[in-house]
Amino acid sequence: MRESFEIRSSAGSYDVIIGAGLLGQVVKDYPNALFLVDTFFVDAIKRSGVRVVGVTASEQAKSLEHVPEVIIRLRECGANRGTHLVAIGGGVIQDVATFAASVYMRGIPWTYMPTTLLGMADSCIGGKSSINVAGYKNLVGNFYPPKHVVVDTEFANSLSAEQIVGGLFEAGKICYARGFAEFNEYLACEPTAQMNAEQIRKVVSGALRAKKWFIEVDEFDQNERLLLNFGHTFGHALEAGCDFGVSHGIAVGIGMLVAARFASERALLSAAGARRVDGLVSHARGLLRSVDGMLEPPPTIDLARVSEKFENDKKHYSERYRMVCPIRDGELELIAEPRNADTRKRILDAYRAALADIGWSSHIF
Amino acid sequence: MRESFEIRSSAGSYDVIIGAGLLGQVVKDYPNALFLVDTFFVDAIKRSGVRVVGVTASEQAKSLEHVPEVIIRLRECGANRGTHLVAIGGGVIQDVATFAASVYMRGIPWTYMPTTLLGMADSCIGGKSSINVAGYKNLVGNFYPPKHVVVDTEFANSLSAEQIVGGLFEAGKICYARGFAEFNEYLACEPTAQMNAEQIRKVVSGALRAKKWFIEVDEFDQNERLLLNFGHTFGHALEAGCDFGVSHGIAVGIGMLVAARFASERALLSAAGARRVDGLVSHARGLLRSVDGMLEPPPTIDLARVSEKFENDKKHYSERYRMVCPIRDGELELIAEPRNADTRKRILDAYRAALADIGWSSHIF
Repeated sequence: MRESFEIRSSAGSYDVIIGAGLLGQVVKDYPNALFLVDTFFVDAIKRSGVRVVGVTASEQAKSLEHVPEVIIRLRECGANRGTHLVAIGGGVIQDVATFAASVYMRGIPWTYMPTTLLGMADSCIGGKSSINVAGYKNLVGNFYPPKHVVVDTEFANSLSAEQIVGGLFEAGKICYARGFAEFNEYLACEPTAQMNAEQIRKVVSGALRAKKWFIEVDEFDQNERLLLNFGHTFGHALEAGCDFGVSHGIAVGIGMLVAARFASERALLSAAGARRVDGLVSHARGLLRSVDGMLEPPPTIDLARVSEKFENDKKHYSERYRMVCPIRDGELELIAEPRNADTRKRILDAYRAALADIGWSSHIF
Repeated sequence: MRESFEIRSSAGSYDVIIGAGLLGQVVKDYPNALFLVDTFFVDAIKRSGVRVVGVTASEQAKSLEHVPEVIIRLRECGANRGTHLVAIGGGVIQDVATFAASVYMRGIPWTYMPTTLLGMADSCIGGKSSINVAGYKNLVGNFYPPKHVVVDTEFANSLSAEQIVGGLFEAGKICYARGFAEFNEYLACEPTAQMNAEQIRKVVSGALRAKKWFIEVDEFDQNERLLLNFGHTFGHALEAGCDFGVSHGIAVGIGMLVAARFASERALLSAAGARRVDGLVSHARGLLRSVDGMLEPPPTIDLARVSEKFENDKKHYSERYRMVCPIRDGELELIAEPRNADTRKRILDAYRAALADIGWSSHIF
């Protein structure tokens, strides 16, 4: 089964196509395209006979210092104003392709094929590029959507259980943020680390359609779209506080549990809200437990450092911590809490309780 | 006297203000701005007490390899999403500022103050950035207009006669391309290398208002705006063919003379057209003669190399040379001439005749 829909943006509309085995079609449709590909897939793509530029997916690769190398390779491959670029890979490849395509000869058309579940279900649309400069992470970037986003769900076969679960957290988060009906549809796909192709297609489709609403109603991250940061303020602090020993997706999953625990302890939820949040929490807990033994090396979490990272998050106001939490009947809101010792204790307690809840107490040191 | 008008672009409108002594006003209006300044003006600007980042105006400075250095300096000066950037300088500074402002934290607002006459009368509006990568000139770039273009005509006091004349050629070209009335208004300013402030303001104003028409009617260089390449195909070949021993503005001036001569020899002009073109030619000739003795070192022109550069211009079709020439009653058109020995001889003859006309025969070797 194959489906498609359109995303409207100020830079023009672009379409999203979701299905299994679409790579062959793209190669057939763009025989003269230049393929910018995660080195992991280079051999497979080269066999199709198309021109391929490989990029290693690393933090260094998505740096402004590294972009000239990619530009030069495009030029050496003979790319001109009319060349179509097809990017195949995860977030790093998407960042590099967005940036390179936008500036090469002042902009060339491109197509993006995400290869991670996180890319398929979330970042492939509305995606701005984030590029590192020297030691500064994501200091520069821009917005230059592809002409087409082609989600070939077969790429999911290359993913580990941890990568699948990480992607599911972002997918579930978007659906939850969109509304209870959307989240229930998501749960009805029975999302686990061992989904079949049809389940993956359904999860990806539901999450992207939910995200489409957010990015069309608030393209520039001013209002509704901020709710998609659910799990991220707590998650980013966790990720950074343990030197990225926990992957982004997993950290977001735990971040949602921390937010839920904080909301509950702060008595922000009605009885109905608590029940709805429970649905999210037990799903996230199940996913986390299903991959716990697989994390290599096991994460080691220094809560003092996590706390420090949370403190330094630039999104807070000087007098208020800001974070997205479920409130009232379970709907999300960007709340602002007093920046004092009391709140800090509540936050730390929420981290401890959430980690205990998934059996990770032994990972805290 | 001070005047202002608005430019409409797909990236939003921006305004242009022209007057003498506007720098002081900008410093007062943006005390917290970060000033990105040609090193030539750094000391003068620093005296105002604002934060200044100096950039040396060189081909190397406008390279993708050099951009990270500028970004890092913006970051070290504490620039954030809300920081206003004020760029002061010529073409290189405009290129660097356009690019850096567009990507820094995904885009910060900026103001541009051109310091060359070419910048004031032409490139400060509709300006895309052009950035070098490795050995490839202008391989990348983008479009990110400033919020305000502030033309302080007092910067013209820092310019040499050659720089003034170079700017006048671009200004005259734009006015000629716009129409005979506009070109006559331009001539009525009595533009020479020794203009007073009021003359400069009038020339800049007339040229920018004429250019405004072109960039609003054809923002993306598809039709009318291509006529602004008048003098450029012949001029670029001349510039490159003598290793940039002739400045861009002067080369464009000579390029217009070559185009006029080609059109006349090819019998493309009516009697009325020939008279109109004569008005342009005698003005350009006068300007060139007024600076001839000042060019240091005197240019040395290898016509075989110029011819080779003309041949390799990517704007030609495989079977046709393409160039903007005055035709019929003197109006400009992008013409396509057979790519054969006959045309090549005509072109070379036109170069020789135009150079003889300005007394530069002795510069040919």
